[in-house]
Amino acid sequence: MRRTLFEDHHDEFRAATRAFLEREAVPHVDAWEADGMVPRSFWTKAARQGLFGFEVPEEHGGLGIDDFRFNAIVDEEVAYANAIGDNLSLQSDILCGYLCDLATPEQQARWLPGFVAGELLFAIAMTEPGMGSDLRAMATTARPVEGGYVVDGAKTFITAGIQADRVIICAKLAAEGDPDPRDGEITLLVADAQAEGFTRGRKLEKVGRRAQDTAELFFDGLFVPQEDLLGQQGRGLVHLKRHLPRERLSMAVMGIAVAEKALEMTAEYCRERRAFGRPIGSHQANRFALADMQTEVSIGRVYVDRCIEALLAGELTGAEAAKAKLWITEMQNRVVDRCVQLHGGYGYMEEYPIARLWRDSRVQRIYGGTSEIMREIIGRSMGF
Amino acid sequence: MRRTLFEDHHDEFRAATRAFLEREAVPHVDAWEADGMVPRSFWTKAARQGLFGFEVPEEHGGLGIDDFRFNAIVDEEVAYANAIGDNLSLQSDILCGYLCDLATPEQQARWLPGFVAGELLFAIAMTEPGMGSDLRAMATTARPVEGGYVVDGAKTFITAGIQADRVIICAKLAAEGDPDPRDGEITLLVADAQAEGFTRGRKLEKVGRRAQDTAELFFDGLFVPQEDLLGQQGRGLVHLKRHLPRERLSMAVMGIAVAEKALEMTAEYCRERRAFGRPIGSHQANRFALADMQTEVSIGRVYVDRCIEALLAGELTGAEAAKAKLWITEMQNRVVDRCVQLHGGYGYMEEYPIARLWRDSRVQRIYGGTSEIMREIIGRSMGF
Amino acid sequence: MRRTLFEDHHDEFRAATRAFLEREAVPHVDAWEADGMVPRSFWTKAARQGLFGFEVPEEHGGLGIDDFRFNAIVDEEVAYANAIGDNLSLQSDILCGYLCDLATPEQQARWLPGFVAGELLFAIAMTEPGMGSDLRAMATTARPVEGGYVVDGAKTFITAGIQADRVIICAKLAAEGDPDPRDGEITLLVADAQAEGFTRGRKLEKVGRRAQDTAELFFDGLFVPQEDLLGQQGRGLVHLKRHLPRERLSMAVMGIAVAEKALEMTAEYCRERRAFGRPIGSHQANRFALADMQTEVSIGRVYVDRCIEALLAGELTGAEAAKAKLWITEMQNRVVDRCVQLHGGYGYMEEYPIARLWRDSRVQRIYGGTSEIMREIIGRSMGF
Amino acid sequence: MRRTLFEDHHDEFRAATRAFLEREAVPHVDAWEADGMVPRSFWTKAARQGLFGFEVPEEHGGLGIDDFRFNAIVDEEVAYANAIGDNLSLQSDILCGYLCDLATPEQQARWLPGFVAGELLFAIAMTEPGMGSDLRAMATTARPVEGGYVVDGAKTFITAGIQADRVIICAKLAAEGDPDPRDGEITLLVADAQAEGFTRGRKLEKVGRRAQDTAELFFDGLFVPQEDLLGQQGRGLVHLKRHLPRERLSMAVMGIAVAEKALEMTAEYCRERRAFGRPIGSHQANRFALADMQTEVSIGRVYVDRCIEALLAGELTGAEAAKAKLWITEMQNRVVDRCVQLHGGYGYMEEYPIARLWRDSRVQRIYGGTSEIMREIIGRSMGF
Repeated sequence: MRRTLFEDHHDEFRAATRAFLEREAVPHVDAWEADGMVPRSFWTKAARQGLFGFEVPEEHGGLGIDDFRFNAIVDEEVAYANAIGDNLSLQSDILCGYLCDLATPEQQARWLPGFVAGELLFAIAMTEPGMGSDLRAMATTARPVEGGYVVDGAKTFITAGIQADRVIICAKLAAEGDPDPRDGEITLLVADAQAEGFTRGRKLEKVGRRAQDTAELFFDGLFVPQEDLLGQQGRGLVHLKRHLPRERLSMAVMGIAVAEKALEMTAEYCRERRAFGRPIGSHQANRFALADMQTEVSIGRVYVDRCIEALLAGELTGAEAAKAKLWITEMQNRVVDRCVQLHGGYGYMEEYPIARLWRDSRVQRIYGGTSEIMREIIGRSMGF
Repeated sequence: MRRTLFEDHHDEFRAATRAFLEREAVPHVDAWEADGMVPRSFWTKAARQGLFGFEVPEEHGGLGIDDFRFNAIVDEEVAYANAIGDNLSLQSDILCGYLCDLATPEQQARWLPGFVAGELLFAIAMTEPGMGSDLRAMATTARPVEGGYVVDGAKTFITAGIQADRVIICAKLAAEGDPDPRDGEITLLVADAQAEGFTRGRKLEKVGRRAQDTAELFFDGLFVPQEDLLGQQGRGLVHLKRHLPRERLSMAVMGIAVAEKALEMTAEYCRERRAFGRPIGSHQANRFALADMQTEVSIGRVYVDRCIEALLAGELTGAEAAKAKLWITEMQNRVVDRCVQLHGGYGYMEEYPIARLWRDSRVQRIYGGTSEIMREIIGRSMGF
Repeated sequence: MRRTLFEDHHDEFRAATRAFLEREAVPHVDAWEADGMVPRSFWTKAARQGLFGFEVPEEHGGLGIDDFRFNAIVDEEVAYANAIGDNLSLQSDILCGYLCDLATPEQQARWLPGFVAGELLFAIAMTEPGMGSDLRAMATTARPVEGGYVVDGAKTFITAGIQADRVIICAKLAAEGDPDPRDGEITLLVADAQAEGFTRGRKLEKVGRRAQDTAELFFDGLFVPQEDLLGQQGRGLVHLKRHLPRERLSMAVMGIAVAEKALEMTAEYCRERRAFGRPIGSHQANRFALADMQTEVSIGRVYVDRCIEALLAGELTGAEAAKAKLWITEMQNRVVDRCVQLHGGYGYMEEYPIARLWRDSRVQRIYGGTSEIMREIIGRSMGF
Repeated sequence: MRRTLFEDHHDEFRAATRAFLEREAVPHVDAWEADGMVPRSFWTKAARQGLFGFEVPEEHGGLGIDDFRFNAIVDEEVAYANAIGDNLSLQSDILCGYLCDLATPEQQARWLPGFVAGELLFAIAMTEPGMGSDLRAMATTARPVEGGYVVDGAKTFITAGIQADRVIICAKLAAEGDPDPRDGEITLLVADAQAEGFTRGRKLEKVGRRAQDTAELFFDGLFVPQEDLLGQQGRGLVHLKRHLPRERLSMAVMGIAVAEKALEMTAEYCRERRAFGRPIGSHQANRFALADMQTEVSIGRVYVDRCIEALLAGELTGAEAAKAKLWITEMQNRVVDRCVQLHGGYGYMEEYPIARLWRDSRVQRIYGGTSEIMREIIGRSMGF
């Protein structure tokens, strides 16, 4: 189905982005996976290419363009290139939104120029060991003190946790001398990763997404000055929720692009590989498998594009974004798994891109809210 | 997701259609099911309501409006009313297209006024006993003779086969004295059901769709005059294929509407029925089931609407229509089956509408091209 | 996989049962479906054939053989004959167990001779309108009075409800003058269907199982004498639970037999029907579908037979029986649905046996404890 | 369901095997994964423990016990220990069978003592680059020459390909000067890995099974003397097929054990991890997921044990073994995937055993005959 979402300048941006990734990312992916992260030099190059923060105001070095279609193009091209994981998406789909929306002008002046230059990498630290999706179980506290807050606690599964220069910490407010933090009063604080009391744990070894640094973080009497409070004290949850539809949509955007890519490379493989005297894709069971995947991919693509339209129109609800995240990432995993099967033994070999897509895709159903959490959100939107 | 397909006059037409069906169809459905068909009187009322053939030229009594959105509205409202099966869809989504597209001006003048008045019901006879989807196995022959054709053969599963006044017969051309019909030279002939040599078999008892008359037809030396040849001799397959995307889309249109209806009534049931002290929909496994269905229904709706847009733009391909038919009807069946389960024992009782939806939905994956044929079409469009 | 469960005398019993059903049931099924029930004359014939109550003591006219393999053979042959639904299973797998286990010698002397003769049909009335699986929501009460109980309430979905001569009513004890029945104190009472205050509602129209009479029952000041108390007052739940593994296993026994039958007839159909020049079963996608079904059927058969062995050894747990009921009936429905698909349009025609299996099978996932209740039982057995 | 397969001496063997693996394998698995293989020292220890080749005649150092239950115990304990992949299974379930069955007494005297001592590791080289499951596409040739054969060709995905001392090569016979090998005349030759013309390619990097060395092998004018022909010249396919049921059953044995292990560790995790105030396993959707998995695992276990019984009785057919391999390995993957999901983010971390089970399990549906090949075998056994 012909896509109707983009205009000419989007297509030009896509072409440039693709060329950039082909040149600066694709040749290095194996090395980056071995290193366990993408080097800083890539982020600054990507920033110069204009891939960080379209909506950052021009006065802070951005383009001042609030058009998620640019984000979507970057996410898609990253997925098509099978290259750098979602670090870039984290910066421009998620963190950029927080900074532009919640930071004061003074904070923006301090942070955005570096952010846009790819020199000040951010991370957001929400999940804690053993906390899962239950935000009420959050144990990291921010105790208000003279001139700021003292933060204690630990976080885990933090993307960019090893490289980030600044980390948005979600913490529960604890009154001076109060042993129990106040339920629900989550506050966002931007910590400097060089500050005393901020320790990075080891880089976590993941099944996939190996070029993405994921880490535990520990805060031990970490002082965050008042001027690094992000948004309003105690309103962290409200701030976070406001951006969730966009964040979840960005995962669906990557998910559908991965599924498209996996199917494209598998269809090509099935045209070229022959067995029993003809291309393996022409064996009926394989042809049907390919047709089923093509069907799901087409349907998913139309839905994601419609969600992007709704986001642009300010109409995308949390439930619709949850549906996109849920269905697309589940479908992505079904498709990628079946593509592995169609590759036979080669699908299990690291040197084949489909193998990487398989192990990298699995986390999509878990992070950014598990499929189960998405079902909760959708179910509640129906009144259950 | 807000639908963007319709304009104000469509909404007015929808309201009028809904009111008409509530008044003229819904109260009679049980009786019609018991009778095994919808009475002629309903068809003429529906015709007066303007539900037959929007695109019929004004000179023949139609509206001359070629806008499939009107068809879609009728299909949707019929599905929402859980009422009359797909007889109406057969007339206006399928047969009307053939008549307007293939009939000569002389034929149009003879047939269309009666058609638009709901007084001349048509059927199309393609499937034969034991033929399935293999058109090459067609055994009904049309032998050219002086002034027309002599048709011999049998057809089955013919919707409206008991009531139809005119039947478009698909037959293979057989030369005079030639025992074997020429492969593939399918010809369309419009037979008068009163003609000698035209016999209706018994009405077939189906698991569902009980208000729809489905029949076997037998042709024994049936003479069809030359002026009732539809389209070009030997070009029947080409004629049929041209309309397939629209026909399959209309099945998807009904399918998604049935799924929406089933989910709506089930969600309501799950809000009202209580077990273990709370609404059954609030039990997590049920809530998740409802959320999964809502997700699939939302995604399916967006895709079907996009297909309608493509049809309006003249862009809907056979493969895209096949995807819509395949995925939507499979999803419809998944949804309806799960809705039955959520109704517990009531879901198995004929008096509950969900039970009727369940047994009526099953044929959607079979007729108009089985799901397997859809996969063939999609697979071939990918080059396999 | 060769079955190892049976001995020679079982095989002889199976052959006789099969011949009996072929002769006395199969030719009449269509008529019985139209009538909505199996006539009394069949039940007495079946009783003379020895199909009612193997374990009934010889003194009361039974065989005194407590060997569930005989029950299994009857269930299987009934399923293979695609004939009489589960009325027979109700009598010999469920009700016979209650009577032999709970009835006093005096009650046995009164009831069992008629039962074994097929002249005294029983039913059990547990489910109530709107109650579902939540036994605590039971609203039928038994108020102890001089010489017995007065029962008030209503029941629904009662198999054999139209024909039964005696009905085991599950009711909650209510003290004289006590408005609220005591929670959980369920008592079993055997009511005479001719008694004053016992009214049968209309026969419920079901999607399938049409030869089985299912009804609502109403009790309005129904007096049940003390001597018709079954088991101990207030211990009804304990009595019921003791027999659940056997009851659920009997549903799995029928389920796997139906799946075997459906697959067998479909495989035969796929060998004989040809399309595109060869048997439809030799098309790869169909061959794979048949192979998947054969796999599930084989695995299910081995599991059910193992459960029967465990029941014979007194080892079958409630959780294992729940697994059998859950997996087998879900699989049965998957298989039967796919068999319909392989039949194409014929699969939707009532005259094809596969159509009947499809509509009849659906209730298996609902009654006797829904699939959801089975999951609860299994989950709890794991400690959740 | 209580297992009935084993006797006391099997249980003793199991306990000893478990202790051995706990001591000699489990502590080293991470190091072996990093190295990409299990060291030779482990194989000799395992041999001393009696894990190689129960059925090897006593005169050659074996136990002379042909009882697959011992193999099954080793496979199960290896799976429960989540330890060494399937190298041991390859030696004792597959290669030992070939050697005991096909080797001449003279060959047995040469090979079996070293094999039983774990000092002479074997591999079997069947698959070729681009060949997949199509044995007719085999391109490796064996040209009969004076005193033996000259082998040319390449193989891939060869388990133990890096370590093996002897490799059973499947090759097609080519007559002297005959450019085309004779179709189907596959011959088995035992090559010495030190021989001239035998080259090992690089170790293949796999998504999982990282402690298992898998390699490409190249044969360039490799001379294999006549005395190293295994079985009869040109009868290789017959030889291979004879052992397939046992080989495929051994994969099912490992598969069900992995599923049991994954479920056990996940159930424990779900009892201990809490969210929203209670163990995550007590949330209904999770409880149902656990119940579904427990059901499939129980059913699979009963089927695999029945297949082992059939193998012991000499009754296991190729189709039954194919069903076991197909269903169990597909189920294993469903279970392991769902277990990852229940672990949330931890399920994606290499340090959690479930993550390893996930990536290691994927190949089970591919090697030893893909699921698609299993469906072909089963479908053919039904006459399609």
